[in-house]
Amino acid sequence: MSERPFFRPAQRMTVGEIVTLTGAVSRDGVRLDHVITNIAPLDWADASDLVFLADGKYADLLRSTRAGACLTTARFESLAPKSVNVLRVPNPHGAFVAVARKLFPGALRPTSLFEATGIAEAATIHPAARIEHGVTIDPGAVIGPRAAIGTGTVIGATAVIGPDVQIGRDCSIGPGATIVHALIGDGVIVHAGCRIGQDGFRFQPGRDGHIKVPQLGRVIVKDNVEIGAGTTIDRGGITDTVMGVGTKIDNLVQIGHHVSIGRNCIIVAQCGLSGGVVLEDNVMLGGQVGIADHIRVGEGAMIGGQSGVMSDVPAGGKWVGYPAVPRREYFRSLVAQRKRLKDSK
Amino acid sequence: MSERPFFRPAQRMTVGEIVTLTGAVSRDGVRLDHVITNIAPLDWADASDLVFLADGKYADLLRSTRAGACLTTARFESLAPKSVNVLRVPNPHGAFVAVARKLFPGALRPTSLFEATGIAEAATIHPAARIEHGVTIDPGAVIGPRAAIGTGTVIGATAVIGPDVQIGRDCSIGPGATIVHALIGDGVIVHAGCRIGQDGFRFQPGRDGHIKVPQLGRVIVKDNVEIGAGTTIDRGGITDTVMGVGTKIDNLVQIGHHVSIGRNCIIVAQCGLSGGVVLEDNVMLGGQVGIADHIRVGEGAMIGGQSGVMSDVPAGGKWVGYPAVPRREYFRSLVAQRKRLKDSK
Amino acid sequence: MSERPFFRPAQRMTVGEIVTLTGAVSRDGVRLDHVITNIAPLDWADASDLVFLADGKYADLLRSTRAGACLTTARFESLAPKSVNVLRVPNPHGAFVAVARKLFPGALRPTSLFEATGIAEAATIHPAARIEHGVTIDPGAVIGPRAAIGTGTVIGATAVIGPDVQIGRDCSIGPGATIVHALIGDGVIVHAGCRIGQDGFRFQPGRDGHIKVPQLGRVIVKDNVEIGAGTTIDRGGITDTVMGVGTKIDNLVQIGHHVSIGRNCIIVAQCGLSGGVVLEDNVMLGGQVGIADHIRVGEGAMIGGQSGVMSDVPAGGKWVGYPAVPRREYFRSLVAQRKRLKDSK
Repeated sequence: MSERPFFRPAQRMTVGEIVTLTGAVSRDGVRLDHVITNIAPLDWADASDLVFLADGKYADLLRSTRAGACLTTARFESLAPKSVNVLRVPNPHGAFVAVARKLFPGALRPTSLFEATGIAEAATIHPAARIEHGVTIDPGAVIGPRAAIGTGTVIGATAVIGPDVQIGRDCSIGPGATIVHALIGDGVIVHAGCRIGQDGFRFQPGRDGHIKVPQLGRVIVKDNVEIGAGTTIDRGGITDTVMGVGTKIDNLVQIGHHVSIGRNCIIVAQCGLSGGVVLEDNVMLGGQVGIADHIRVGEGAMIGGQSGVMSDVPAGGKWVGYPAVPRREYFRSLVAQRKRLKDSK
Repeated sequence: MSERPFFRPAQRMTVGEIVTLTGAVSRDGVRLDHVITNIAPLDWADASDLVFLADGKYADLLRSTRAGACLTTARFESLAPKSVNVLRVPNPHGAFVAVARKLFPGALRPTSLFEATGIAEAATIHPAARIEHGVTIDPGAVIGPRAAIGTGTVIGATAVIGPDVQIGRDCSIGPGATIVHALIGDGVIVHAGCRIGQDGFRFQPGRDGHIKVPQLGRVIVKDNVEIGAGTTIDRGGITDTVMGVGTKIDNLVQIGHHVSIGRNCIIVAQCGLSGGVVLEDNVMLGGQVGIADHIRVGEGAMIGGQSGVMSDVPAGGKWVGYPAVPRREYFRSLVAQRKRLKDSK
Repeated sequence: MSERPFFRPAQRMTVGEIVTLTGAVSRDGVRLDHVITNIAPLDWADASDLVFLADGKYADLLRSTRAGACLTTARFESLAPKSVNVLRVPNPHGAFVAVARKLFPGALRPTSLFEATGIAEAATIHPAARIEHGVTIDPGAVIGPRAAIGTGTVIGATAVIGPDVQIGRDCSIGPGATIVHALIGDGVIVHAGCRIGQDGFRFQPGRDGHIKVPQLGRVIVKDNVEIGAGTTIDRGGITDTVMGVGTKIDNLVQIGHHVSIGRNCIIVAQCGLSGGVVLEDNVMLGGQVGIADHIRVGEGAMIGGQSGVMSDVPAGGKWVGYPAVPRREYFRSLVAQRKRLKDSK
């Protein structure tokens, strides 16, 4: 594979080291001292690349690959050319990712766009901000009074951190992001252009139009949360908006005032969570899902893309549709509708 | 309640002052000289906090609250412990908001993140810009030639104001927002990362691909409009895109070229209004609603979340669904469909 | 029409020059030396303005217009007052746009908000960046190491360009946009606040939560692409995310990792394309469409607004609905459903 312009591998790995890392079983004839320096798709790979195959759909590509090594299952291992060092694992993609993380540690979270360390001259830091040693702040960033930033954290170019905001250690705050009225844990990734902590959308009717309700709460983002580009998270009114440990949020998601999200949830792009929504742990939302205000989604529930959730979802529920209902019910209804349509022709 | 880290009350209020402000009737035994310094939820409150109860669902919390004072209706007033100064009002939440606005005037619109006044040294102001006395401009902001900004307005960090843009008095422009080709009234709040005034999405077919139609209009934002984080408002092609007085727009809303929005509309997050849409006064759109181009939505109409509006909606209409139809029709159809499904089992 | 505050025409055109440019046929009595300096709607126009009429709906406005010249079809030409220089063309709007492009070349792509040329003093350029002669960089922009920018390109205020990014010639990068891990062609327009090249949303399950999959690919944006405000385009994991020549993307669109988009596609606001989606050439997506991962949409297909595409769409298909089906099928089903509802009353 031609050199990656944006990432250079941090190290080389022998096939033997890949076996050790992944617990793979080598096919006969594997050369454990063969050196791998990159990963690649099956059809682009050359002798220095690691590839993987998990899905029979791509078996033909395995037959003709020129990769140096391939992680795959017992089912496919005989298909690879002899030149390939084939490594058998139960979960080829998982093992492949483990190697990729080892080769490219620089890709595990966004780094300084200026490839700098320390505080850029062109950043504006309020004298009352508290910046730990080992923080990197890129040009154009603005840090307000009493904001506190922990060691290992990178603040991207033109990012804005408001007064009293606390950001933990080893975080990456993307370029152009704004964070106010928020407490951010350790290991959090906030991508470019996120908007965290602005006022919730709360008004009450008045004689002369809508009256703004003061929004006095905060946004709490716990450890190891990742938040996608352009996502907006409003602060709470009296209580707080909370993102639980390990939750991952995609791009352009809207999270309303005093939403509470549990641990390790997955929220795909463009979802909208109205004020007061509760997601328990391990909930998964497909893209463009909307959830009405004060709805509770139970632990481990999965909601299909574009669904409109208007009632509470029990733990483990798999719901879909508008309004969302259990998946089985939805598809039964869809099938019945199509059958009727066919019958009526 | 523990101290709010991000807001400090501007003043203390006695229970007597709260009575005066809200017109409340005191329960027997109320101490009018008791001092309130904060607001809180029923279960977090202590003796210096004001709480409210409007909904029987939370009546149990009222029974055990340790709040200093509570706004509630006649129905619930006997439930509160004797220690609580109970104030009877017809609309407890409205009265509660009135007190919150008095205690926390700093939360009524976003203020300088640098807690500064005047023009930050790290802002870039074109020499031909016209900045009134009493304007605050935070670090990293960029103001173009002939832009005019009225007194009392705050321009957030890294916000960008284009040439000839006019912004009235007492506005808050959020950090990272960009405003071009626009006239902004008084008392307008634009949250972080809004994009106002860029080209509308207009092309016409050509032999060699799509040809860009010049977009020569403006965005007019009238007094007391509020626009959420990340929302995009395109300028008109020949005529203007207009947001009427007092209209409130949530986060990540898309408003196309020459859309015209009336007074005091409410537009919840992630709605999309195609080019030429007209909303008359007092229209309410739920979240993620889409409206096809050149549709007119009549005065006071309410559109349910995620609806797709493909035909004009009469004044006062309550519509929902995809394609949107009157709510009654929609639910009748839904009930019929579910009944059929049940019958067919 | 009152003077446009934001655009000044670059030249004057006589009616004769408009005839030459558009191939129009003059109505009897047209004064070819009449001077046009602006364009306007029928009802706002005065003697120096060009208008057009293509739709009978606005015929009444033509009857009373005071425009200096009007482009229209044979069908309507007799309706215009005698004072109007009427020019007959088969496609009045197309001809009108051609004149508008000639009068207002400054509106064909966003220009420097500082009306400057060269590199602003308040921009931060890494010494290893490669900026061609003739590039304009507005205040507050940040350009990373080894980024290369071609002549004629304008980088907006506070835009951020990451290391090794390549941007071609005659591009406009909007204020507040961020571009990393990307190669951008010639003549590309990126509007305010776009987020291009950040990590795709890829995780794999682990004992201690979701494990981030390194995202090592790029975003490739080919010549003459236009990308709307606030749109997010993630880079690929192993392979690249690609936007084909001449494709136009509206505001707040989400494009996932390793999506591949062909030539001259039109993607209306707030669409969401999941990872691995393929759009062939000339595909049109209405607003708020969602497409499930790895779906292929064939050449020239058109998808109706708010549809949810969960299966491959053949070339030329016109699909709509949730889940999306061919338009004919969808409307047949809708009609049948409404009929049943009526019958059951």
